[in-house]
Amino acid sequence: MFGASNFPFAYGACGGDTASALAAGNPVVVKAHERHPGTNELFGHAVLAALHATGLPVEMFGLLQGPGATVGQALATHPAARAIGFTGSQRAGRALFTLAAARPVPIPVFAEMGSLNPLVILPGALAERSEAIAAGLVQSVTLGVGQFCTKPGLVFLLADPASERFTSQLVIHMAAVPPATMLTADMRKNFCAATQHFSHIPGVRTLVAGAANGFAAMSPALFATNSTTWRQHPELREEAFGPGTIVIQCASMEDLLATLELTGGNLTASLHFGSGDAAPDVRAVATGLERLAGRLVFNGYPTGVEVCPAMVHGGPWPATSAPATTSVGALAIQRFVRPVSYQNTPDTLLPLELQNANPRGIWRTVNGARTKAGV
Amino acid sequence: MFGASNFPFAYGACGGDTASALAAGNPVVVKAHERHPGTNELFGHAVLAALHATGLPVEMFGLLQGPGATVGQALATHPAARAIGFTGSQRAGRALFTLAAARPVPIPVFAEMGSLNPLVILPGALAERSEAIAAGLVQSVTLGVGQFCTKPGLVFLLADPASERFTSQLVIHMAAVPPATMLTADMRKNFCAATQHFSHIPGVRTLVAGAANGFAAMSPALFATNSTTWRQHPELREEAFGPGTIVIQCASMEDLLATLELTGGNLTASLHFGSGDAAPDVRAVATGLERLAGRLVFNGYPTGVEVCPAMVHGGPWPATSAPATTSVGALAIQRFVRPVSYQNTPDTLLPLELQNANPRGIWRTVNGARTKAGV
Repeated sequence: MFGASNFPFAYGACGGDTASALAAGNPVVVKAHERHPGTNELFGHAVLAALHATGLPVEMFGLLQGPGATVGQALATHPAARAIGFTGSQRAGRALFTLAAARPVPIPVFAEMGSLNPLVILPGALAERSEAIAAGLVQSVTLGVGQFCTKPGLVFLLADPASERFTSQLVIHMAAVPPATMLTADMRKNFCAATQHFSHIPGVRTLVAGAANGFAAMSPALFATNSTTWRQHPELREEAFGPGTIVIQCASMEDLLATLELTGGNLTASLHFGSGDAAPDVRAVATGLERLAGRLVFNGYPTGVEVCPAMVHGGPWPATSAPATTSVGALAIQRFVRPVSYQNTPDTLLPLELQNANPRGIWRTVNGARTKAGV
Repeated sequence: MFGASNFPFAYGACGGDTASALAAGNPVVVKAHERHPGTNELFGHAVLAALHATGLPVEMFGLLQGPGATVGQALATHPAARAIGFTGSQRAGRALFTLAAARPVPIPVFAEMGSLNPLVILPGALAERSEAIAAGLVQSVTLGVGQFCTKPGLVFLLADPASERFTSQLVIHMAAVPPATMLTADMRKNFCAATQHFSHIPGVRTLVAGAANGFAAMSPALFATNSTTWRQHPELREEAFGPGTIVIQCASMEDLLATLELTGGNLTASLHFGSGDAAPDVRAVATGLERLAGRLVFNGYPTGVEVCPAMVHGGPWPATSAPATTSVGALAIQRFVRPVSYQNTPDTLLPLELQNANPRGIWRTVNGARTKAGV
């Protein structure tokens, strides 16, 4: 497991990936993120204490600190490794994926590598609650100083007077957000470089210039452009990890739908609509967004992820390298299990879950029907 | 979808992979196996007729004939391809896997690439039904002239007088099986080459020499060796696709368990035991086999695969490139779906399966509980 830089608790030594793999019965080796050695060390001790307290073998868990490229390569190519969990950059995720696929016996890589999280606002929504959406969107973009993998980084609108007014409202809300400290100075540096880059692209207007402040603080940044410019500059499709977003005005519904497809794979996609929007338009955008993401959000914001059976935190590449899985929620354990069919097996040799009497009292499919009854 | 040479019906243009992908709503392009152009053409017309009859777009299905390497490479690297199903050799499967992993946006490959299907017979089983097992095993090895991917290709025994007697019984049953026609002359040629190779390895006894006959007919072949020789010759771990098997005598239970691990990934693993076998021995072998295969068979034979919810036709590499999935059974559809989470979605925009009233009447998890009730 390769811990994340942005969530040392949820994606660190003791995070969801580790929990899923342990719950499925696998020993876990964690490569701590270089920016959080102390936090990971503390969590590592917590896991060891839990193993001792529950009488599980201490060999179930290991924690490695060190340079990512060296330690990562050694782990990914080790014959005993059977699966890799990773959260981080597309470059590092791709490198692990390629290493794992080139092994004599390839292993799966569950890499989360970035997401633009498009958010579409249709005219009907602006007609009803432009101001509220501006306030909510700025809150979502700047939550945790924009360091959420689900931060809405692209906002799609139809070019009309209502969207101009909405953009002005966004500016007011965003300019009022004070600078806040990012997780590391490196993160701020990368965010500043990305936004500097955006601001120099012809056709991109800098509506709010983010300002660096102190050791690692940053105030939010807002950009606007039209779909033609956005399509012409693939660098505008690179994730700027931090408190910033880009508003993209589209010429028509057709333009909007075609432009959306270029956002690639995403963890989330959001749609705001109102009673004035035609049902076929709403459905067309929803269908388009469904192709792009693992989670669709209607009239809401994508930041904030509930750990529940219905959660999908995943999506087409590069959101994850394994779009059929999720890293958050009850289904996350499926990354680390393998199905086995037991044919003509004596009851005592079956796992408890499959024994005739159903000692676990779980739902099972018996001769095609769902039941909790014994056999 | 790349059709198989050995099952032009079940793994051809109209086989399980095509059915799973279509059922999940995906258009399918089939690369017909070069040995079955006519059969695939007939199935292709059947699929088109079904699309017409059901009013589905004809674009849902395409059939390509041609040389595997050329057509396969073009399909695997095509940007529109989202997943690959394949049944065939380890070399071709690995090539597709590597191509798919090297794409700018990698896609999953569900490749079935061969399986040795170890079958273990413990002394208690031989004490009770040696003759019956010999008869059943020969039937399984020679079913379909040995051209089942689940053919038991390795038989593990403990070296003792009972296993010598059993081997003699195997010889009698196998020598009585008449030559039968294999699917293609090439298959027979490959099988003859593999068995010729086995017969020249020092320490390998040829107990029944398979004989080629007519255009593509073959009589079965039986070899015996000990675990030391088998371990020293990795070529004995290569699948000989056809009516043959190798008996391996092990010096002890420890030797048996350690030798089994070298069989790699398998579609199936089988265990015959009797009332005289110690429960810990039975459990140790069962646990060892569980690590090796997608389906465990007790006191039976692995050939014959039922299409049912409990089926797993898969297993660790090279049995398949995606051991968390199955190519046969109700779960096969999961290879071709991607989960999507719908958050705050208006009822009318939800798939029928998720609408509040539960119009499909399916089992669902609502607030953590299984129910068929509406919300």
